[in-house]
Amino acid sequence: MTTVYLNGDFIAKEAAKLSVDDRGFVFGDGIYEVVRVIEGRIFAWHEHEARMARGLGAVRIPFGPSDVAGLEAVCNRLVADNNLRSGEATVYLQVTRGAAPRTHYFPPAGTPPTVYAATSKFTPSADMREKGIKAITFPDFRWARCDLKTVNLMGAVLARQAAHEYGAYEALLIRDGMLTEGAATNAFAVIDGVVRTYPLSNYILPGVSRMYAVESARAIGVTVSEDPVTEAEMRGAAELFIAGTTTDVAPIVSLDGTPVGDGTPGPVTRRVQKEFLKRLYGGG
Amino acid sequence: MTTVYLNGDFIAKEAAKLSVDDRGFVFGDGIYEVVRVIEGRIFAWHEHEARMARGLGAVRIPFGPSDVAGLEAVCNRLVADNNLRSGEATVYLQVTRGAAPRTHYFPPAGTPPTVYAATSKFTPSADMREKGIKAITFPDFRWARCDLKTVNLMGAVLARQAAHEYGAYEALLIRDGMLTEGAATNAFAVIDGVVRTYPLSNYILPGVSRMYAVESARAIGVTVSEDPVTEAEMRGAAELFIAGTTTDVAPIVSLDGTPVGDGTPGPVTRRVQKEFLKRLYGGG
Repeated sequence: MTTVYLNGDFIAKEAAKLSVDDRGFVFGDGIYEVVRVIEGRIFAWHEHEARMARGLGAVRIPFGPSDVAGLEAVCNRLVADNNLRSGEATVYLQVTRGAAPRTHYFPPAGTPPTVYAATSKFTPSADMREKGIKAITFPDFRWARCDLKTVNLMGAVLARQAAHEYGAYEALLIRDGMLTEGAATNAFAVIDGVVRTYPLSNYILPGVSRMYAVESARAIGVTVSEDPVTEAEMRGAAELFIAGTTTDVAPIVSLDGTPVGDGTPGPVTRRVQKEFLKRLYGGG
Repeated sequence: MTTVYLNGDFIAKEAAKLSVDDRGFVFGDGIYEVVRVIEGRIFAWHEHEARMARGLGAVRIPFGPSDVAGLEAVCNRLVADNNLRSGEATVYLQVTRGAAPRTHYFPPAGTPPTVYAATSKFTPSADMREKGIKAITFPDFRWARCDLKTVNLMGAVLARQAAHEYGAYEALLIRDGMLTEGAATNAFAVIDGVVRTYPLSNYILPGVSRMYAVESARAIGVTVSEDPVTEAEMRGAAELFIAGTTTDVAPIVSLDGTPVGDGTPGPVTRRVQKEFLKRLYGGG
């Protein structure tokens, strides 16, 4: 039996049911996180916690920083109750503006947010890590607040589906001629030995793995420039890679069917990945 | 007791519960409609039906045109079962890509969509119709597929909340210096006697009421131009109005605290509104 958390209760997943008036369902009016758990230890909890609190604050869902902090214990209990304290797991967390009669504006003060968390066993893909992934490009027609991790994810859904049908893992999104990020990861190019990635702004998610990838690159003496990569630069890049909570640092070996570099994981990517994994498994 | 429709069943609203894995909740992966019911008759059903079928097709939720057509009977039964065959009502309809383990890409073929419908008593606001509404302006930072009526509505939620806090009814959205539409209505300006509105495109919803407003204006000899209104033109317009399923044609008498024209509903708006209401109540 899988145990999940919903609004204060640890219950069987089958028993966890939402109101049809939940604003997550009706408006996509919620914020989520996915965290990685390694041998019972949550990786980078504080970074995820801070991002979630910031997002909830930005859209003014009344679930404050101390409430978000309390979710750490929820994650730990879910991991324990579901026998996931050994090996790896992920925890999905979502907070919406609650259930209330439908109005676009916020529901009455006092409407309790919906708070949901669930954990799953996770096995990192050795293939993705060692052999790399295929990617496609896709137009970035998402809204202009991609820095907020809301559940308004239709753009990402359509992009990932296009990738999936192509036999690729990720879709790299192009806005105004620039590579912004992947549909569910941050994206990087290695050009003239420099790791380039879109700057933190309203157009990309401030990825926790992005931050660790940047830190890892700098730690091994690789220059990182938060300078947007044009589509042409991307297509000519020596190396491309993505970073995310369930991908770690993964090399991109093919883009839109064309090999990236020589079609194998590039040397800079491998070094950054190695340093990244040291942080991930060494204690974040 | 309120009866709603969920996945084939007509049940008490309290009993209508969603899976925490519903892709509406997790991804905003759904399409919705709101229809108006007058004395038991659905207004403009075929227009709403066609738009919903088009939207579901565009995002490839497997609920085809004949399935959507079948929702007309669902609406009629909900109206009857909830004793709403006299007076006015609205029916809310939502179809999501169903409940499945979370992947950004589509769930396995055969995953049944979630189909939900609910009706409510509705009383048009005489004040809105006669005295007009206040509006504010708000940045249009929504995605670039506003022609699809998805539940990715966070942008609209934040805009409407800003209006609500200002004591206004609607937020007029500005993208690239142009008035696109309201957060949940289409928007119109009367400039030099011509009704101007944003052209049908990926940046606005093809509103059913928009279409009836345009048709009404033309029927009484008013020229309509689907030519974007700049922010400056909007602020200098003699008249402004909105159109939507629960607003009908409503004059805007104040924008960002400044009177529109002389601060009362304008003559062109009143004539268009009169013709619109004739269509609405005369049999659409």
